[in-house]
Amino acid sequence: MDKYSAVIDMGSNSVRLVIYYETAEGTSYEVDNIKNTIRLSTFLNEHNEIIEPGIKEVLRVLTQYRQLCEARKVSSVIGVATAAVRKAINKEELLTRIYETTGFTFRVLSGEEEAYYGYLAVVNTMSVSEGFTIDIGGASSELVKFADRKLVESYSFPFGAVTLAKQFFRNGIPTDAELVSLEKYLKEQFLAHPWIKEKKYSLIGMGGSARNLAKVHQKMMRYPFASLHNYHMKKYHVDTVFHYLKELSPTQMQGVEGLSKERADIIVPGIYIIKVLLECIGSERFIVSNKGLRDGVHMESRLKAKNLTLLDDVVEEGIYALMVNYKVNQVHARHVDNLSCTLFEQLAKEGLHSYGPEEKRLVSVAARLHDIGRMINIGEWNQHTFYLMVNVFLPGLTHKQRLLAALIASYKGSKRMQRLVAPYESMVSEADLQMVEQLGLLLLMARALDRTESQQISDVKLLCSDGVVVLYCWGRVNEQSLEAQTLEEHKKKFRKQFGLPLRLEWKSK
Amino acid sequence: MDKYSAVIDMGSNSVRLVIYYETAEGTSYEVDNIKNTIRLSTFLNEHNEIIEPGIKEVLRVLTQYRQLCEARKVSSVIGVATAAVRKAINKEELLTRIYETTGFTFRVLSGEEEAYYGYLAVVNTMSVSEGFTIDIGGASSELVKFADRKLVESYSFPFGAVTLAKQFFRNGIPTDAELVSLEKYLKEQFLAHPWIKEKKYSLIGMGGSARNLAKVHQKMMRYPFASLHNYHMKKYHVDTVFHYLKELSPTQMQGVEGLSKERADIIVPGIYIIKVLLECIGSERFIVSNKGLRDGVHMESRLKAKNLTLLDDVVEEGIYALMVNYKVNQVHARHVDNLSCTLFEQLAKEGLHSYGPEEKRLVSVAARLHDIGRMINIGEWNQHTFYLMVNVFLPGLTHKQRLLAALIASYKGSKRMQRLVAPYESMVSEADLQMVEQLGLLLLMARALDRTESQQISDVKLLCSDGVVVLYCWGRVNEQSLEAQTLEEHKKKFRKQFGLPLRLEWKSK
Repeated sequence: MDKYSAVIDMGSNSVRLVIYYETAEGTSYEVDNIKNTIRLSTFLNEHNEIIEPGIKEVLRVLTQYRQLCEARKVSSVIGVATAAVRKAINKEELLTRIYETTGFTFRVLSGEEEAYYGYLAVVNTMSVSEGFTIDIGGASSELVKFADRKLVESYSFPFGAVTLAKQFFRNGIPTDAELVSLEKYLKEQFLAHPWIKEKKYSLIGMGGSARNLAKVHQKMMRYPFASLHNYHMKKYHVDTVFHYLKELSPTQMQGVEGLSKERADIIVPGIYIIKVLLECIGSERFIVSNKGLRDGVHMESRLKAKNLTLLDDVVEEGIYALMVNYKVNQVHARHVDNLSCTLFEQLAKEGLHSYGPEEKRLVSVAARLHDIGRMINIGEWNQHTFYLMVNVFLPGLTHKQRLLAALIASYKGSKRMQRLVAPYESMVSEADLQMVEQLGLLLLMARALDRTESQQISDVKLLCSDGVVVLYCWGRVNEQSLEAQTLEEHKKKFRKQFGLPLRLEWKSK
Repeated sequence: MDKYSAVIDMGSNSVRLVIYYETAEGTSYEVDNIKNTIRLSTFLNEHNEIIEPGIKEVLRVLTQYRQLCEARKVSSVIGVATAAVRKAINKEELLTRIYETTGFTFRVLSGEEEAYYGYLAVVNTMSVSEGFTIDIGGASSELVKFADRKLVESYSFPFGAVTLAKQFFRNGIPTDAELVSLEKYLKEQFLAHPWIKEKKYSLIGMGGSARNLAKVHQKMMRYPFASLHNYHMKKYHVDTVFHYLKELSPTQMQGVEGLSKERADIIVPGIYIIKVLLECIGSERFIVSNKGLRDGVHMESRLKAKNLTLLDDVVEEGIYALMVNYKVNQVHARHVDNLSCTLFEQLAKEGLHSYGPEEKRLVSVAARLHDIGRMINIGEWNQHTFYLMVNVFLPGLTHKQRLLAALIASYKGSKRMQRLVAPYESMVSEADLQMVEQLGLLLLMARALDRTESQQISDVKLLCSDGVVVLYCWGRVNEQSLEAQTLEEHKKKFRKQFGLPLRLEWKSK
């Protein structure tokens, strides 16, 4: 029986429903994701009451979400509400009417909780152990400082992209005076917290402003990789996008590639928060996170079942989920991983390469995922493995790491690699491709060593003597085995890649 | 618990193991496929005994297959053997030794059975109701004539690519005299069967010779579609490849793109069988089938469980398998299909398009499959749906039909469509793309009509009056619903594609 769960995030700018498919193995992935830009914060009157049209709008949208949840027979829906509802003095009325109309219950998060969930989403989907997260909402912005993956400080600022736009800007192109007064305000707000200065830390941004900033930059750069999560920008990239957008009229804004039309009027204050914050921190690096509050909420409930708050290893979790979804023979994949790592180390020891732990990790990722493309089609499976590895959600790795791991996993020879990498040429160097060729071959060899997928070979040792590389293989194998036969096919490539002939020695154990 | 089954095909040229993953829903797909070119027929001595080195080679390979089956915990292995074993007077000894060493049992197929399984694979994976199938093996070739999808005549010829090469050619480039004598022999063989003349029928080829013929032709033509099954060639294309290859030396053969190195020495007689057979039939069309004997054997056992020999509808079966594998919400997909077909018919009735049943079927395929890309990533899911539809095994449709259905399923707008179709430009006309834009929009509308995936809209009617198209929607919906809201977004595109403004009328029922 298929199982689904959902999270509804009632924010001050938009309301969003995410439906997750939950596998029997405890992994999950998004199957629906819908957003309505209600701008709930604009329905707060001067007494901080959400006025009737705002309530009606919420009920209308949540009724739609109810239908979506019923259609999928979603078994658990977690609703959370943030700043606009938090501020509202009539929140009880709103929540009661929501419950009566839709059956949904909502937790109104404190600013602190809001900050926590954003942080939680980031540390569980990126390989970062220290930094700041900023979640820019419509009416509030949550800043977290974390180290050793643990939350150190957090603060919820009482402003967001929508409220700043309303408070500081008239319509149209912002004037210098408006920007100056906004900057002054933001600096005061941020610098009231001395823990903000930590210039070695990166700033990780969540929410629509951060995502749109990154999307616009990706379009400007003709960035070839189709992923937003974990996109890295330098501070001057943020400044470039900011200076570009702040000069545009509302009409010109509508034509900006990568910018959501609904966000055109609030993007300048949204990015300004990031720009000023980077200055206050003294940081040079901005990273966008496509995962945020709702994912933190979903993750908390998933991890609770395992008595965890943090995933032990973000990358490993992502690899496991893919092996499950694409029906990989996991015993085989893990054996290939062990063989690859052994070959990697022994080749290094014999001086045949000088790659380090970073490259070893890429091989290890590739080893576990090299078979995922088979589910699409066993013909040209390597091309499908490549396609999946660059397009699925694979947390914890940078885009470049994903690309390189995908190239290693799908490696069959130089020509095919060149064809696969062509659209991504701007992301890799000649040295990267040289590495892919050597480590791709190493993975081919490790796969050959378990071609029967039955772990016949228990150990390998590689020694270099008299200008020959000898690979000793122990196990229930001999020259007649499929392993031996498959490995023979790679000897020529070995000589080409590592400059020495390869000899195979089969030792039954 | 994952379930696997396997088929081993011990042929006269090669032995092959295919492992299938069997889903709980009764569909299946290949997860491993391994071939060993043993050339068993060359181990038959003059007394038609398989000599000891041949038996050893078989045992060696089958021991590898045993390991592969054990590793996947394959629950049922069906072994079949063809001409070489059929001919062998010591077949009992061979089969006993196989059983003792590996535990595998083999059925030795008669020529008639061999022919039947090839035919069965073809009629269950292609939408053809009449034609010939030819399965060219190493030591025999099976011809079947079928009509109304039923087998009418069949014959197993006692020659194959390996035996003809041995019998008619010296090494190196074939001489004219050699070719003439081979042609004479083949014509005599074929024309002994008067039922062979049926020039309106297509010839569908199976086996390595047919596949390599098609691959070489695809490479020559820079064919962009990565699929061999159901590749169509004209008779003169077959002639072109034949004339190209027959002039090449063994060394030159090794460099031919698309040609398997192991087959270089037997490709000329293999293709010659097809060429001469086309002439004898009087047919102008050759189609390659990537499915053959082993798939027929596997299919028989799958269909037996359902008390069937033939699938009712090849295309429907393929669609169902994909909906299962990629976790599509089937109730939603079928509702979208119904709505699409209704819209299609009513637009036609109002004179807004003049497409026929062929295009309607494309929409229907697209409607069921439009969501398959979501499993890869919900971001850019439409690009993933397109990728899957052109790369997975989707039987029964021609390549062009698959491409068009994929474009309709993934349609979001002209620009994106242009980008997706770019590599396949040579396969489509301007009129095709015009059709995709109109029918893609129609599918977008049908999807909007079930955006909540909960079948709120039970009926639609489209009427054209006074230069306005009015779409009446009955059900539990109104202007406030997600369906209405989503459909509104397509009004502008409708005017552009169909030349008239669209008005929506919501009728609660």
